[in-house]
Amino acid sequence: MSILSADALRQLFDEARTHNLFTAEPVPDHLLRQLYELMKWGPTSANCSPARIVFVKSPQAKARLAPCMSEGNRAKTLQAPVNAIIGMDMAFYDKLPELFPHNQAARSWFEGKPDLIATTALRNSSLQGGYFILAARAVGLDCGPMSGFDADAANAAFFAGTSVKVNFICNLGHGDPAGLFPRSPRLSFEQACGIV
Amino acid sequence: MSILSADALRQLFDEARTHNLFTAEPVPDHLLRQLYELMKWGPTSANCSPARIVFVKSPQAKARLAPCMSEGNRAKTLQAPVNAIIGMDMAFYDKLPELFPHNQAARSWFEGKPDLIATTALRNSSLQGGYFILAARAVGLDCGPMSGFDADAANAAFFAGTSVKVNFICNLGHGDPAGLFPRSPRLSFEQACGIV
Repeated sequence: MSILSADALRQLFDEARTHNLFTAEPVPDHLLRQLYELMKWGPTSANCSPARIVFVKSPQAKARLAPCMSEGNRAKTLQAPVNAIIGMDMAFYDKLPELFPHNQAARSWFEGKPDLIATTALRNSSLQGGYFILAARAVGLDCGPMSGFDADAANAAFFAGTSVKVNFICNLGHGDPAGLFPRSPRLSFEQACGIV
Repeated sequence: MSILSADALRQLFDEARTHNLFTAEPVPDHLLRQLYELMKWGPTSANCSPARIVFVKSPQAKARLAPCMSEGNRAKTLQAPVNAIIGMDMAFYDKLPELFPHNQAARSWFEGKPDLIATTALRNSSLQGGYFILAARAVGLDCGPMSGFDADAANAAFFAGTSVKVNFICNLGHGDPAGLFPRSPRLSFEQACGIV
């Protein structure tokens, strides 16, 4: 494998920004499918793949989501063409016989172990959240991920009667640079990393 | 933004695999720096950036890591040119005055709230783990991420006396296809997603 083009690296990493305002350009459903068909290949432990995604597009669904958002996130959530609710299936281990077919005992590693289930679901659905954000950018979409919402309200509004809980929410669309904040700094290599 | 080239999408997603065996081709330090300089731009909540990474390369450091690995992961960890220990700084909020400079109150959102700290550290360092894996692939490296190790032993061996805890470990190098397992299936769009 060789390094991706400088343009591709910029689109995925260096020049990608968290957007707060989106243009009116719609996001067709086939692009959301393409996004998932890419992100699904990202690795998870024992291929457990706990992420579940609800793409909120209709005015009716947006009206259910808006009251769950924190004050500072509400207007931009309503304004974005799509809001992706990244959930995690707390019964993800029920799918292991399908997802990890070479070891039919994998389900038993988790069953009845709530702490391990919670940690595994959060770690792996968040890893998949990272794949989601970069896959969205790879298909030409801009992202606005958010943790500022009432999780209990969002669970009641979108996941009632299921084993799925919300992890985070990510606005999607074509970003309008007019809504960008100045870019915040990052830790240097020396602050964050070591080679031993 | 337009969609990345088919080659780039294949390298990042469709054709990327979890590798268990690596060629003897070394991984120079400048490539690890380039990896970090890309992944650092990925978004985290309040830019909290909790991931801390130790790149294990020397025989001495590998000898410290090997006993921490589960039996099934030990040989391949020793064989890989680099093992990246992806940690999370449980005192990440102490860096918020630097990382989130426009709101000097951000540190107080977390201080003294251990449950919120633990969830925020795990969610965001795992998101960064997703950026890490895709940035590694973007610079032409193959990955072998693992959760099978003794976390207490790894913390004692690499993070003693610090506020960092291990999240997961990822082997890095140039994959040898001879070590690949058959690819496991993924959930369909209909199983994992909905559009409302």
